Amino acid sequence: MASMAAAFIKPSNAFPHSPITFIKTTSPSIKLPISLRIKNNAHRRIRVSCGLIDPDGGKLVDLIVDESMRAFKNREALSLPRVKLSRIDLQWVHVLSEGWASPLSGFMRESEFLQTLHFNSLRLHDGSVVNMSVPIVLAIDDAVKTRIGASSKVALFGSDDRLVAILNDIEIYKQPKEERIARTWGTTAPGLPYVDEAIKNAGNWLIGGDLEVIEPIKYHDGLDSFRLSPAQLRNEFISRNADAVFAFQLRNPVHNGHALLMNDTRRRLLDMGYTNPILLLNPLGGYTKADDVPLHWRIKQHQKVLEDGVLDPETTVVSIFPSPMHYAGPTEVQWHAKARINAGANFYIVGRDPAGMGHPTEKRDLYDPDHGKKVLSMAPGLERLNILPFKVAAYDKTQGKMAFFDPSRPQDFLFISGTKMRTLARNKENPPDGFMCPGGWSVLVEYYESLVPANNGSIPKPEAVAA
Amino acid sequence: MASMAAAFIKPSNAFPHSPITFIKTTSPSIKLPISLRIKNNAHRRIRVSCGLIDPDGGKLVDLIVDESMRAFKNREALSLPRVKLSRIDLQWVHVLSEGWASPLSGFMRESEFLQTLHFNSLRLHDGSVVNMSVPIVLAIDDAVKTRIGASSKVALFGSDDRLVAILNDIEIYKQPKEERIARTWGTTAPGLPYVDEAIKNAGNWLIGGDLEVIEPIKYHDGLDSFRLSPAQLRNEFISRNADAVFAFQLRNPVHNGHALLMNDTRRRLLDMGYTNPILLLNPLGGYTKADDVPLHWRIKQHQKVLEDGVLDPETTVVSIFPSPMHYAGPTEVQWHAKARINAGANFYIVGRDPAGMGHPTEKRDLYDPDHGKKVLSMAPGLERLNILPFKVAAYDKTQGKMAFFDPSRPQDFLFISGTKMRTLARNKENPPDGFMCPGGWSVLVEYYESLVPANNGSIPKPEAVAA
Repeated sequence: MASMAAAFIKPSNAFPHSPITFIKTTSPSIKLPISLRIKNNAHRRIRVSCGLIDPDGGKLVDLIVDESMRAFKNREALSLPRVKLSRIDLQWVHVLSEGWASPLSGFMRESEFLQTLHFNSLRLHDGSVVNMSVPIVLAIDDAVKTRIGASSKVALFGSDDRLVAILNDIEIYKQPKEERIARTWGTTAPGLPYVDEAIKNAGNWLIGGDLEVIEPIKYHDGLDSFRLSPAQLRNEFISRNADAVFAFQLRNPVHNGHALLMNDTRRRLLDMGYTNPILLLNPLGGYTKADDVPLHWRIKQHQKVLEDGVLDPETTVVSIFPSPMHYAGPTEVQWHAKARINAGANFYIVGRDPAGMGHPTEKRDLYDPDHGKKVLSMAPGLERLNILPFKVAAYDKTQGKMAFFDPSRPQDFLFISGTKMRTLARNKENPPDGFMCPGGWSVLVEYYESLVPANNGSIPKPEAVAA
Repeated sequence: MASMAAAFIKPSNAFPHSPITFIKTTSPSIKLPISLRIKNNAHRRIRVSCGLIDPDGGKLVDLIVDESMRAFKNREALSLPRVKLSRIDLQWVHVLSEGWASPLSGFMRESEFLQTLHFNSLRLHDGSVVNMSVPIVLAIDDAVKTRIGASSKVALFGSDDRLVAILNDIEIYKQPKEERIARTWGTTAPGLPYVDEAIKNAGNWLIGGDLEVIEPIKYHDGLDSFRLSPAQLRNEFISRNADAVFAFQLRNPVHNGHALLMNDTRRRLLDMGYTNPILLLNPLGGYTKADDVPLHWRIKQHQKVLEDGVLDPETTVVSIFPSPMHYAGPTEVQWHAKARINAGANFYIVGRDPAGMGHPTEKRDLYDPDHGKKVLSMAPGLERLNILPFKVAAYDKTQGKMAFFDPSRPQDFLFISGTKMRTLARNKENPPDGFMCPGGWSVLVEYYESLVPANNGSIPKPEAVAA
């Protein structure tokens, strides 16, 4: 059985033993297919990811300031107007800082915000188009706007009052909340989780600009080592000699239907002639709604799945995607796919109703379950990405395992929804054999046991939630 | 003073006296920059609009069936399931039939509908992108869907039970009303005029397909001669030797501020080196909300403005744009601009809050008044169009005329809103001298006189409304 350490990739500084050519960064005349921003730090050599898909805009954005500049930036920040970041704001700083949203170099200014809302894409100076479907914006209220006055820069502080970043060449513009919500979610119904958490009570202004992030974002929750940046992931894929990378986005526990799908995808890629397709299993690590399984329980569950050999650690990289979740269906799935291009993935698996949820006020799905994959397959700026539509997996009672649904014998299949799965785990009942590996299931049961019912018996709150 | 006949262009079949080369349509080897669909009808020769901007998709769509085929199509329709068209549906058939929405060849199928909602653009087979921001769709209800069954074609009938068109290779898909509204208008607030008129009570299904329109759409309202198709407009521009065409969209009476702007635009284009810029004054002729001035009154007013010499008939083409109005601000202004590319315009004048209106339930503009021109300037598929942002004109009390607003002396200027203008005309008061030519103003006063107050004194209804 594979060791967890082999399956879960830790951030690596192990550059030496690579079969890939090294290019000295001091040679300015050499054109790098991916020209990582050259910095005056420990890594004087960068690796060229010859085989991987180019990041959006041709260049992986890296917004972390050089170590040598940190003290200076800390001093500079002392004189700047301060903006306090929420938990979700900080997650977006993380996302931006590592280039998941390349070529974005900071929180959106109005022109980027409007293009995102109306076109789900950004036109670059050279006329090329990259996908960008969810606004990555920072809200401020009237008081903060007044405090900023005519300053061209602000300092961004975390909830612990530590300096996180400096935002340069700022632009402040109105936040049209209703319009933002309508165009992003296709509804303005009350009860959208991200809206309630991050928009409804936020300020009426947005502040855009170029970020200089003081140091890599860490959460100190025991999971930081599982948060690989796009640059680190690219290095990992290269060191494994990947000739195809297929990404699987998820925010739920992995069951054997997922595993079947991922393993089948690898087989299909081998059939297509690739010799070493690598899976990027990339659970979303930012904000999720209250009834989703919290990140650290999901990671524990994913670890068990790898320990139990359901996925092959040799060809699987498990790493956390730091983005918060919008639950914005066809709009958000584009963001999920686009960000993975930046992490080196050239194949993206898309399922039924990606990033979807129930309508907050009506008894129906918020989105047509087929729209996500249709929209994704037509999205501007994603032409380079190979979209792999999900085959539907269900529990085959005749085989006693998860299998691809066979429409010629529907009576043999059992669909186990997320709600059903959660109810079983909450009641400490077992799912049918072969639905999920026993180790993974026990983590789920353990999670629900940890939930202490509220006194009124209504909404159970998690005992511990990852930071 | 110019005669009205000179100012208002009637559909012309006067091809002979043009300086532009004629190309025989029977020569298939000649590549036409605009290959008008060749038909076996009276016009055996088509004019190449060498100087004009290419239509979207390279080819101006023409969906009218050959006269020789009409009898056959009428017979074919007898055997097909019938769909009854609303007044607005018929306006869209008109728009589609003449190629204003080129390269659309009929009501949208789902892939076009989704691309419109999410990206405001369509990707063509060759990978190029055209703008398309408002859904051009046909709704049907459950009963009609059942009646259509497995037929691959339907016959579309007008309210007078005359056959209008055949829709081929149909695709029926769900109409996600809430999502359509939210993504098109950026709000789902009740009271959006087009929603109330054409979506709220329409069926829950949309039917897309390729149109064959039996004969040119006519309204028999005395204004058909002012409804030039994009092909006719292109011919008109060529016959006038236009080397630039600048379009002005409007749905309101023309005042001297508009005229100043249009005349100033011509002057700017001459300064840029164009020798004969032609103005396309292209009032919207389809559905408008109840408190807008009806089409036939507006046309009467525009005629007076030309008679009074406020605009130069030699360099102005006035013609009706048959589209219905969405009042969807930044989303709709793209449609207004895109359609005018197809009519041959390569310059588009955009003002403050284009296609905007007050928020239906809140005391504010529905859209940020600056978003329209910003969105338009960044819109995919409109890169070829030169956007001319509107300078703000207001009544200069020191000069006693409309003039460009001078921010250094704001106290000298009077802003006369549409509401203010309507109130004055309704009360038979005169606006300040120089606001509008007297002939034009008298038409407005006459219109409001024609409104018979309802018995309860609340909502005045027009005595006569254009069909």
